[in-house]
Amino acid sequence: MSDAFVVQARCGEARAGVLQTNHGPVETPVFMPVGTQATVKSLASGDLEALGAQIVLANTYHLAMRPGARLVRDLGGLHAFMAWPRAILTDSGGYQVFSQQERRKIDDDGVTFHSHVDGSSQRLTPESAMAIQADLGSDIAMAFDECPASDAPRDDLCRAMERTTRWARRCAVATPAQGQLRFGIVQGGTDLGLRTEHLAAITELPFDGVALGGLSVGEPPETMHAVVREIGPRMPDARPRYLMGVGTPADLLAAIASGIDMFDCVMPTRAARNGRLFVRGGHINIANAVHCTSALPIEAGCACEACRRYSRAYLAHLFRVKEILYCRLASLHNLEHYLSLVRGARLAIVQRRLPEYVAQQSRG
Amino acid sequence: MSDAFVVQARCGEARAGVLQTNHGPVETPVFMPVGTQATVKSLASGDLEALGAQIVLANTYHLAMRPGARLVRDLGGLHAFMAWPRAILTDSGGYQVFSQQERRKIDDDGVTFHSHVDGSSQRLTPESAMAIQADLGSDIAMAFDECPASDAPRDDLCRAMERTTRWARRCAVATPAQGQLRFGIVQGGTDLGLRTEHLAAITELPFDGVALGGLSVGEPPETMHAVVREIGPRMPDARPRYLMGVGTPADLLAAIASGIDMFDCVMPTRAARNGRLFVRGGHINIANAVHCTSALPIEAGCACEACRRYSRAYLAHLFRVKEILYCRLASLHNLEHYLSLVRGARLAIVQRRLPEYVAQQSRG
Repeated sequence: MSDAFVVQARCGEARAGVLQTNHGPVETPVFMPVGTQATVKSLASGDLEALGAQIVLANTYHLAMRPGARLVRDLGGLHAFMAWPRAILTDSGGYQVFSQQERRKIDDDGVTFHSHVDGSSQRLTPESAMAIQADLGSDIAMAFDECPASDAPRDDLCRAMERTTRWARRCAVATPAQGQLRFGIVQGGTDLGLRTEHLAAITELPFDGVALGGLSVGEPPETMHAVVREIGPRMPDARPRYLMGVGTPADLLAAIASGIDMFDCVMPTRAARNGRLFVRGGHINIANAVHCTSALPIEAGCACEACRRYSRAYLAHLFRVKEILYCRLASLHNLEHYLSLVRGARLAIVQRRLPEYVAQQSRG
Repeated sequence: MSDAFVVQARCGEARAGVLQTNHGPVETPVFMPVGTQATVKSLASGDLEALGAQIVLANTYHLAMRPGARLVRDLGGLHAFMAWPRAILTDSGGYQVFSQQERRKIDDDGVTFHSHVDGSSQRLTPESAMAIQADLGSDIAMAFDECPASDAPRDDLCRAMERTTRWARRCAVATPAQGQLRFGIVQGGTDLGLRTEHLAAITELPFDGVALGGLSVGEPPETMHAVVREIGPRMPDARPRYLMGVGTPADLLAAIASGIDMFDCVMPTRAARNGRLFVRGGHINIANAVHCTSALPIEAGCACEACRRYSRAYLAHLFRVKEILYCRLASLHNLEHYLSLVRGARLAIVQRRLPEYVAQQSRG
C-alpha cells in the first residue's frame, strides 16, 4: 500500500483528492472513459487529451485476446501502443470472463473459458491476470475477482466473495510492473451485511485502492444507491474508492456525495452511438424527428466540437444515414458532458457547495 | 462564363492556376475529397481544414434524398449545414441516377427513378438538378448529364452525348445561386472522335469550367490515360478542367501532366476503410500479418495524425478488431497522401520540374 493518494478537501462525505500515478497525477473525483480495445470507441488519444480526460480504462480480457499482452509489452506497453501519455487503469478480466456464463468453468485456482474471438480454450488465474496487467504496463491494476450475477442466491454470493478474498491475497503478492498501483475489489451483491464483511477482508490487504464491484449489473438503481450510500463512507479514508461500471450522471453525483472517488462506464460512449445525448438534467434522443430541422447545438455553451460547430439537424442527418462521423461527434459530446460534470463536482467539493451543485445539475 | 480562373504557371501541358469561388480561392491542380452525404466519411470538417483541403465534393442525389435540399437551404445552405467554410462542388446527380440501371427511366426531358432510401418515385431534370444545387448553395454546380456505361455501343454513346448537350444548354440558362459557378460535362466514352466532337459542343456553352465525365467507369486505365492525354490539352485553356471520379495517385499525376486541374475520387477514403494505405510509389495493406508487430508509422515523415502518433501495429489492431477509430486514422492518412501529392505537383509546375516530381513520386 503506497501513499499515492492524498485527500485535499471534503464536503460532507465527498472528497477531492489527488492520486499520483506513473503517468502523472489524477485529480479525483474522476471519470475514466472506457477504451476496451485500447481505444475509446470512435476517438483518438489526442481527442481524449483535448477533452481533459486524466485516465482511461482498458480491458485486460479483450487485450489479452487481441492483440495479446506480450505484443503490447514488446511494443513498449499500452501507453506507447495507444499513444496515450496519461494514466491507464486495467480491469482484471474477471468481469468479462464471468459474463460469459455459458463459456466458462470456475475452480479455486482460476477460470477456464473460451475466447470470444476464436473459441480457443483460455485460462485466467489471479497470477496470470496480474502478469498480463504488468505486461500491459497500466498505472493501476485491478485484482482478479469473481463477479456473481445480480440475482445470485446468498450462498453463491458468499462463495464468490470468499473466493474473491482468496484470489485477492494472491493478487496482492504478485509482482506488479514498476510503480504499478493495485486495487482490491469488494463483492457481496446488494446485501449490506456481506458487503460490510467483504469490505473488511479487502481493506486488510495492502491494496493502493479499494473498488466496489458487482454493482450496476442489473439491480434497481435505488438498490445500488442504497449500497453505495451505506458502504461508500466506510471504505478506507486514506485510499481511493472506485465504483466500477457506474453509471448515469445522476448515479455519479450521488456516489460522489457518498465518498466515491473514481468511476468508469461505457454509458457515455455507448449511449452516444445509440442516439442518446446528455444535456443538463437529462438527455435528448437524436433519432426524434424534432431534431431534424433544428439549427440549435446539442447543448448551448457546451465546449465539445459537436456543439461548437454543428447543429442538431446535422447530427440527426448523420445518425439517420449511418455516417461514421456521427459516432465521433456524439461520443465527444457525451464524454465532455461526463468529464465536465465530474470536474464541476470536484470544484464544488473544494468550495464546499456540493449539494448546491448536485441540485443545479439535476435541473433541466 | 466568368473570369474566375487564372493560370499562373505552366510546365509542359500542366498548369498551376487559381479559381476564385464564393468561399475563397482554390489553387489548382486540386484534389477534392468526396463528402457524399455532407461528410467525408469518418472525418469532421475541422479535420479537412487541418489537412489543407480547399474544396470538397458533395452529392446532389444523396443530399436530395436525405436530408433534402430545401431543408439544407432553410438551415443556411450546405456550408453552414456541414460547417465547412471553404469551397464546395456538387455533382448533378446524373452519375448516381444512371448507375441504378434497374431503377431508372430516361426520356428527353429528364430521368425518373426510384429512391435508394424508400423506393419512392423521383424525377430529376436539368432544371431540377440545377435548382437543387442552387438550394444547396454549392460554389460550383455541375450540369446534369447522361453518363453511359463504359462498354456501351457507339450508338448509345452518341445518343447519350447528344442528350447531354441538349441538357447542358438547359443547365446553362437555369438560374444559379448567387455567385455559383457552373461546369459543363463532356461525354463520348473512350472514342476520341466522339470526345473531340462533344468537347467542341460543350466548350461553346458559357460554362465556367469543363469536365470530363464517363471515365474511370470500368475501362482499362491505359485507355483512360490515352483519352486524357489526347483530350486534356485541347480543353479550353482559360477555364478549369476537371476529370471526374479519377483516380489512383499515378492517374492524378498523369492527368496533371495532360493539363487537368481538378479531381475528385472516393479512392483515398474507400481504400483506407478497406485496409489499403498509400505510401510513396505504392501502398501497404494493413490486413497483412507483417504489420501486426511493426512499430513503424505507415510512412515516415508523413504529417498526418496516424503517422505522427501511431504505429502500424496499432492500426493493424484497430483494423482487425473493427474499431471505428481505424477508419478515421486511415482516412486522414490517405487524404494527406493525396492532398500533399497534388500540392507537390502544383509546386513542381510553378518550379517547372513536374517530370522530375512525377518520376520521384512514382519510385517506392
